[in-house]
Amino acid sequence: MNSTTTLIKSHRSIRKFTDEAVSDEIIGELIACGQAAATSSNVQAVTVIQVTDPDIREQMATLAGGQPYVASAGAFLVYCADLNRPSLACQSKGGEFSPGMTEHFIIATVDVALAAQTTVIAAESMGLGICYIGGLRNKPAEVAELLSLPDQVYPVFGLCLGYPAQDPEVKPRLPVEAVWMKDRYDSAIFDTAVPAYDAHVREYYLTRTGGNKDSTWSDEMKALVGKESRPHMQGFLHDRGFMLK
Amino acid sequence: MNSTTTLIKSHRSIRKFTDEAVSDEIIGELIACGQAAATSSNVQAVTVIQVTDPDIREQMATLAGGQPYVASAGAFLVYCADLNRPSLACQSKGGEFSPGMTEHFIIATVDVALAAQTTVIAAESMGLGICYIGGLRNKPAEVAELLSLPDQVYPVFGLCLGYPAQDPEVKPRLPVEAVWMKDRYDSAIFDTAVPAYDAHVREYYLTRTGGNKDSTWSDEMKALVGKESRPHMQGFLHDRGFMLK
Repeated sequence: MNSTTTLIKSHRSIRKFTDEAVSDEIIGELIACGQAAATSSNVQAVTVIQVTDPDIREQMATLAGGQPYVASAGAFLVYCADLNRPSLACQSKGGEFSPGMTEHFIIATVDVALAAQTTVIAAESMGLGICYIGGLRNKPAEVAELLSLPDQVYPVFGLCLGYPAQDPEVKPRLPVEAVWMKDRYDSAIFDTAVPAYDAHVREYYLTRTGGNKDSTWSDEMKALVGKESRPHMQGFLHDRGFMLK
Repeated sequence: MNSTTTLIKSHRSIRKFTDEAVSDEIIGELIACGQAAATSSNVQAVTVIQVTDPDIREQMATLAGGQPYVASAGAFLVYCADLNRPSLACQSKGGEFSPGMTEHFIIATVDVALAAQTTVIAAESMGLGICYIGGLRNKPAEVAELLSLPDQVYPVFGLCLGYPAQDPEVKPRLPVEAVWMKDRYDSAIFDTAVPAYDAHVREYYLTRTGGNKDSTWSDEMKALVGKESRPHMQGFLHDRGFMLK
């Protein structure tokens, strides 16, 4: 353990923030930290759109399913996977962009997540709190229109940043032996590790909610993957020029 | 700037490592750090398969396009997007897994990248060096077979970890103003920012290679997105049960 790993292991999402804005100086530094992350073939397929207009922030909060901190956090960033910039660069050298490759979609989406998570750890090292907003994918076409995103650019998620006004517990995770395997995939470990984790999660919720939430991880997974989820995503991505082949 | 942001901004990929192995204690701690990252709806769709068998590591090095450090680094991890584990949990509660959702593919791929990048920063804080291995996607079906991956699990990338035996320069990135926008996407900034960056990258390569490599970022983007890239990926993912709708 060192100060960085201690910081990393103390992460929890923050959903209540003080009124203090996050300065441009800090945002610029945080985005520069994100740029320092690894990037596939140096493509840097990440564009961060900071939403500063209060009206647009309110609309984003609504589009994300009614998450008020999207409008009220110290700053709100939309992380976009951006193949438009490398496409323009390619064309400036007389090349012809090859659109719609699934591989390019993966590269760009991974690039975004690596950069965002690096920014997140940098932000937490400065005492800021964060919350990822996957809910932007509820209404990705509306988000894209609000931000004037061209083809080959899609909003992967949002990120709320600000000074915390709450101090929630760290959420328990699966035991490390359930996610770390050697040489081959072995789902037998789940037979013992998942029930133990289910019991742990149930206790966490019961304690945290004064007995009101009685749920396990497996219950939550039934709710998450036991039904269709955002079924518009494939069509949306195709419309924006992604994953056509 | 603080010690964490200084660490983050000093990242460079390491491709030469000492012979020292990375202990199980350290790997376990690094994977636990990765688990502390945010995860969509707590799905934790990440399974890390550490390849310890020297034969399998040699095969991985070949499959990745002949990258010898895949076999020789202190440790080699394969980061898998894993919807099999939540699917089993869903079924254990009487649910029926809804396969092939593009949204679930995005969630799992982003989860993997957030966890891996958190592990990377933790590793670098301990003095380790790293290199992501996207080259595993050259031959994803062969990688999946070698590691006995079930359906609903795919190898997103590999990660070499070890004690550095080289000290390369930090690679220059796009100027922050080319990736940070406010309220709307505006590609006009690229007209000045990209040529400036191209000049910077060209100088970096010329200096680093004693004049042997004369290339700009735009040249590299022409090579990367100006042609089809890993055109097998869509079919591979469909075969594994991903992105069917």
